Amino acid sequence: MSGPLVVGVDVGGTKIAVLIATPDGAILGQSVRASSVGAQDEAAEAIASTIESALAEAGASVDDVAIIGVGVPGRVDPVAGHVSIAVNLGWTDLDLRAALEARLGRPCVIENDARAAALGLHHRRVAGGADDIAYLAVGTGIAAGVILGGRLHRGSRGLAGEIGHAIADAAGPVCTCGQRGCLEALVSGPSIARRATLALANGNRSSRLAAIPADRLTARDVYEAADAGDPLAVQIVEDVGRRLAWAIHLLVMTYDVERVVLGGGVSHAGDTFMAPIQRELDRLRAASPIAGELLPRNVVEPLPVGADAGVLGAVAIAQQALQRDDGFGVRLASGEEVRHA
Amino acid sequence: MSGPLVVGVDVGGTKIAVLIATPDGAILGQSVRASSVGAQDEAAEAIASTIESALAEAGASVDDVAIIGVGVPGRVDPVAGHVSIAVNLGWTDLDLRAALEARLGRPCVIENDARAAALGLHHRRVAGGADDIAYLAVGTGIAAGVILGGRLHRGSRGLAGEIGHAIADAAGPVCTCGQRGCLEALVSGPSIARRATLALANGNRSSRLAAIPADRLTARDVYEAADAGDPLAVQIVEDVGRRLAWAIHLLVMTYDVERVVLGGGVSHAGDTFMAPIQRELDRLRAASPIAGELLPRNVVEPLPVGADAGVLGAVAIAQQALQRDDGFGVRLASGEEVRHA
Repeated sequence: MSGPLVVGVDVGGTKIAVLIATPDGAILGQSVRASSVGAQDEAAEAIASTIESALAEAGASVDDVAIIGVGVPGRVDPVAGHVSIAVNLGWTDLDLRAALEARLGRPCVIENDARAAALGLHHRRVAGGADDIAYLAVGTGIAAGVILGGRLHRGSRGLAGEIGHAIADAAGPVCTCGQRGCLEALVSGPSIARRATLALANGNRSSRLAAIPADRLTARDVYEAADAGDPLAVQIVEDVGRRLAWAIHLLVMTYDVERVVLGGGVSHAGDTFMAPIQRELDRLRAASPIAGELLPRNVVEPLPVGADAGVLGAVAIAQQALQRDDGFGVRLASGEEVRHA
Repeated sequence: MSGPLVVGVDVGGTKIAVLIATPDGAILGQSVRASSVGAQDEAAEAIASTIESALAEAGASVDDVAIIGVGVPGRVDPVAGHVSIAVNLGWTDLDLRAALEARLGRPCVIENDARAAALGLHHRRVAGGADDIAYLAVGTGIAAGVILGGRLHRGSRGLAGEIGHAIADAAGPVCTCGQRGCLEALVSGPSIARRATLALANGNRSSRLAAIPADRLTARDVYEAADAGDPLAVQIVEDVGRRLAWAIHLLVMTYDVERVVLGGGVSHAGDTFMAPIQRELDRLRAASPIAGELLPRNVVEPLPVGADAGVLGAVAIAQQALQRDDGFGVRLASGEEVRHA
């Protein structure tokens, strides 16, 4: 295989996923390193070596690479390639673009993972090909990426879509951010697990959930218990569904997007995850003609089966940068211009 | 005075305001007709005759007019110039552009009033000259107009900014739209008055508010009573402030706008209106570093004193159409092209 190649990297809390693609987005190979990216001063090395392995498996080398896109679950300045904070990775103020470019000698673009995923979904014409879509990631954190009129919406400070910290319940639990009642404090994976352990500690009964040590109980356990009819788990996943329907309603009412695509680890629970959301949306549709019109039955859909929105999104931001669509260019952060022979 | 002139019209529940301006937006004259626009089959005539009076007062005629912009508190298709619903005017399915153009023979553009107002504020570089701003109108209804990257955001169906029907309190009162707990059901002018009359009916005491017949009590009375220290009124306006701070927080978290400008009839209560909002924003800022950063003290500001955002916004949409910035052109809905000599 020879270049020019586009590389997409999705950096998660427990894995680094790499996709090798053509500039048109055709997928040539992929590789997943199933371990933590590690401390922030080792992050660039961990990412770079995973990229090199993926390239080697595909019979290519770094010299074949035109550009690398990296999605990070945190707050990113996409022009500087600076990650100011990525809570779930434990990073603060990391110049990831400069570090990766110094290590690999190829241009890199860094973007928030939910925003990158939204761009990737739009590139691949998911969501009925609509040009106004939101991608809502429900995982360790909660974030939305929004495409408006076919373009990625970043906002004045690159923080658009911080719906995880919208206040869903003023009387709700305190969030890691310090506010009370953030959506993330109610429906993220860790929050769902915490709600179950708290309920058990408060005397609620659930033979299925009580059988799992509290420090190992996950959102997945809660969804599996709900699937098996456990009343406490059902109560929690129904409430999560109501909260997420609220968030979908909010994304539609503010942005007027046509479709909301749901992804993230929690969404892997499939129908047990989606059904309570659709039930609450049904209730809103029945209550209000406006909601009925703005929230048609197909307003929300889960990610297509098997689609890895994160790494496809990382490819999409690299493709977009390659097309110089976006003010990034294919220069290194050092200013040197890199051209692929 | 001779043309070409730009005319802006703001159609409200109890008045029609008209502004005569140059294509650069310099104001040449204005006129307010302080009566209801009336039934929808008389609306075009009422608007047209108010425009003619304003032009006559300014020593001009319809022949001098290049374009007319009209802001309407309702749901508008700005390309067709069709108002599908304007609840507070009692209109449904009105082809306002066609009717006005048939009556006046000049091109007209119709837009939702909050969106038009946002564009007008941006044209006039209110809000520190920021290119990402929201205008939140708190009046008979609640709506936001949003400028993103210097451009008016309409959304996929022209409904962006319908924050009045975001659910602020799932246990709140039922809204006119049918949903429970919409922001509008808690903080619009009529909702504020209704909260006061309900509280009195439920035995809450307020000598100031009880002295006003229930069917004549307005939000203005509630703010005046709060200003005078009436405990029930203070309690209501504090809650309204908390709800509006929630909405401001939401606009910032979703759109990542830099500034939110507050207007609409309820905002005329001045400091009694603004202080509870700032107190709640202070509380959010103190609770969370993210909120502290995204909600600086100047994130919210009232409309500049004396600014009529509605009619200035109507001028702005007409100017924008004149500059063919927007796909409208200066054609009549009939297809005929109108050029000013």
